[in-house]
Amino acid sequence: MLTLYYARGTCALASHIGLEEAGAAYDAVRLDFSQGDQRKPEYLAVNPKARVPALVTDRGVLTETPAILVYIAQSFPAAKLAPIDDPFALAQAQAFNSYLCSTVHVAHAHRPRGSRWADDPAALEAMKRKVPQNMTECFELIERTMFVGPWVMGETYSICDPYLFTVAGWLEADGVDMARLPKTLAHRAQMMARPAVAKVVSAQAA
Amino acid sequence: MLTLYYARGTCALASHIGLEEAGAAYDAVRLDFSQGDQRKPEYLAVNPKARVPALVTDRGVLTETPAILVYIAQSFPAAKLAPIDDPFALAQAQAFNSYLCSTVHVAHAHRPRGSRWADDPAALEAMKRKVPQNMTECFELIERTMFVGPWVMGETYSICDPYLFTVAGWLEADGVDMARLPKTLAHRAQMMARPAVAKVVSAQAA
Repeated sequence: MLTLYYARGTCALASHIGLEEAGAAYDAVRLDFSQGDQRKPEYLAVNPKARVPALVTDRGVLTETPAILVYIAQSFPAAKLAPIDDPFALAQAQAFNSYLCSTVHVAHAHRPRGSRWADDPAALEAMKRKVPQNMTECFELIERTMFVGPWVMGETYSICDPYLFTVAGWLEADGVDMARLPKTLAHRAQMMARPAVAKVVSAQAA
Repeated sequence: MLTLYYARGTCALASHIGLEEAGAAYDAVRLDFSQGDQRKPEYLAVNPKARVPALVTDRGVLTETPAILVYIAQSFPAAKLAPIDDPFALAQAQAFNSYLCSTVHVAHAHRPRGSRWADDPAALEAMKRKVPQNMTECFELIERTMFVGPWVMGETYSICDPYLFTVAGWLEADGVDMARLPKTLAHRAQMMARPAVAKVVSAQAA
């Protein structure tokens, strides 16, 4: 049995969808960031980074979305969520997910979590002002140079899709004009039509 | 034949060392960021992100350090640079590398590249002020909860080691008191004693 720790509105949604798509047996445990659950001793014993997602397995705890997504794909090969045995194709999928975690998620985080990188209130406001431009540029680059269609990697749904769906879910609040991102909007609609995605989105909202 | 694009002082050092450790046949092409090489049309045709590393393969271009490192490990299995067939162990290695790219490299980048996230000069100074604290906290967490020793994952050298070595190479310039990081310093010495590492470090400095 696997246990996923998540919080609403976070990147843990990607791993949550991945587990559901894989047909995994898992429990999902919600943390309430507004109550500081992620900094309580019982959770720090699970993940000393005080972040989500964390996936508890029989062999120990895994963190970091790109790592968890490949773990799910490799542990449930029948779901065919990643081209595990093709080094180049796997690297393409990993490069996409790595761009999301290291550049796009970070660009977004300067709106709600700028205090990670500066203490001065004026600096936090300066960071927030640049988020719409940065997120727009990231997603325009994704649409122009990475997104193959109809899914991220082409004809086959993969671990890139729930992660893109998750990060794209922050765009409106980040002040991005969605009319500039038609592929992202179409992808969102396709994702919501998948039973596994609808089930997880509903479970997290409940 | 593989071609790696790198620039001095960047995270591309990790992939460069990985190729050398794998015994790969490769060319290394240096970009000069001070001349804006990464934004010239000929390089944007290789990597439209205008970043390094980029690894040109027979099947296309790969980017993003964590993706390239797993690609190298999977393409040169005799070098045993990652536990490719063990989903949990691979995920642990990937989680480490993902933490480096999404949290630690980003914490560092707020000193030299804060203009990615804010335009106000005062905000850039505020970001720089917090870098020593953030990098110290990241590496203390690595030493306390991730680094097994003598190598990152334990007895076996892996794709985590050149990446840690690379990011740790920025600590002094980031204003971190290295006396607080004895494992990181010992790891650096072990790395420099490896012929592949010494060869790449020397080649990049030449």
